[in-house]
Amino acid sequence: MNERIYTAGLVVIGDEILSGRTHDKNIAQVASWLQVQGIRLSEVRVVPDVMDRIVEAVNALREAYDYLFTTGGIGPTHDDITVDAVAEAIGVPVVIHPEAKAMLERYYASIGKELTEARLRMARVPEGAELIPNRMSGAPGIKLGNLHLMAGVPHITAGMLDALTGTLEGGAPLLSETVGCWTPESEVADILRQVEQAHPQCQIGSYPFFREGRVGANFVVRSTREEELQSCVDSLCDGLATAGFDFTPGGI
Amino acid sequence: MNERIYTAGLVVIGDEILSGRTHDKNIAQVASWLQVQGIRLSEVRVVPDVMDRIVEAVNALREAYDYLFTTGGIGPTHDDITVDAVAEAIGVPVVIHPEAKAMLERYYASIGKELTEARLRMARVPEGAELIPNRMSGAPGIKLGNLHLMAGVPHITAGMLDALTGTLEGGAPLLSETVGCWTPESEVADILRQVEQAHPQCQIGSYPFFREGRVGANFVVRSTREEELQSCVDSLCDGLATAGFDFTPGGI
Repeated sequence: MNERIYTAGLVVIGDEILSGRTHDKNIAQVASWLQVQGIRLSEVRVVPDVMDRIVEAVNALREAYDYLFTTGGIGPTHDDITVDAVAEAIGVPVVIHPEAKAMLERYYASIGKELTEARLRMARVPEGAELIPNRMSGAPGIKLGNLHLMAGVPHITAGMLDALTGTLEGGAPLLSETVGCWTPESEVADILRQVEQAHPQCQIGSYPFFREGRVGANFVVRSTREEELQSCVDSLCDGLATAGFDFTPGGI
Repeated sequence: MNERIYTAGLVVIGDEILSGRTHDKNIAQVASWLQVQGIRLSEVRVVPDVMDRIVEAVNALREAYDYLFTTGGIGPTHDDITVDAVAEAIGVPVVIHPEAKAMLERYYASIGKELTEARLRMARVPEGAELIPNRMSGAPGIKLGNLHLMAGVPHITAGMLDALTGTLEGGAPLLSETVGCWTPESEVADILRQVEQAHPQCQIGSYPFFREGRVGANFVVRSTREEELQSCVDSLCDGLATAGFDFTPGGI
């Protein structure tokens, strides 16, 4: 089992997220996918469609983590500047990718249209990049070393993640088990702290909720080690039972 | 009309967002609320429940923008470390807020329980802070200068935003109008670019979608100036009509 921890950063690019107009779905989607690859999403930055701000975020996160992902800004319109920003961040020119151009030529010929300048924008990549194929639509993503530029539209991003599945080196996936309680989390705070301290290979997160007029919380135990995880969950359940709390293994 | 642009940063704190377990709802909620206050959300960072990472993000964003908001990590459990991290970031000690303590004492006395150490954690604030009242639940948020620490649970955050409504100085709100087309955005890229260039007080964002088996896009024109906005929308509609595209004012 590989004990090294692999990390990733995500830059979400788009005024539409920062204006509140569009509810981001890519953070959760990329996060869940990375978990399965044994890679931990360690930071997300959401930045506007502004060159300097994208360059700054890309440079900060590509240096801090093993992998960098971006979503948004790779389409054909004037506000799609992710390719230019990433090329500037890593200091390479933007070029037309021959395979991407050929894909676009075939596509537009098949519908009897011309490959205009605007349409050809979708074939632009930072020099040295490969394409990330995508079964969901024609538009490819872009891979350059540990950088992965993906679409903003969530179902197209999903197709690109699908194409990348199993291609990135990762460590042991983070395992988790949940225990739920219809109890204010402040009631069990001491138990959580004690159990976590007794299991240094595990973290316990406490996620309160308010449903059906009642408060409760889910306690999520996380570890890369199966046995330690189970032992920590057992201790937590013992602690809750001893203190007289009803709890629900698997979470509420 | 105040022409100054007011900006805000948001730090979303929580392993549950980075693991993909919880879909964040606070980015869109805070973004929409800020728009109405005439404040522009300029950057979001999502960071884990780790002291140094929260301190770093808080310091970066509070210096870069007029206002800073945080969501998450102000509850009573061991993984709620936002108060400590913010106190460290700005260099003040953590103290018990007398009003918050009194609120907790009254509440626990009313249900015949003791104010334990764990429960008292919810009264901890960075020295000098005020409380942000919240009609949705007893738990207050925390305000310290231009910093606003809010809950992670979205409906509680909503109550805190409600209490802050109208209390922050903002500029002219960013106005927007949307025009939709059942057309691939690459088809209208040239029109968008030309119309935006002719209206320097406006930005046009293009947001493609795939619905009911067809592709389309919404074009969102944004400006703080009502007249310029309308003139830009009119030019866009003229351009689309002249080129023979069907479009839907108000968006699809």
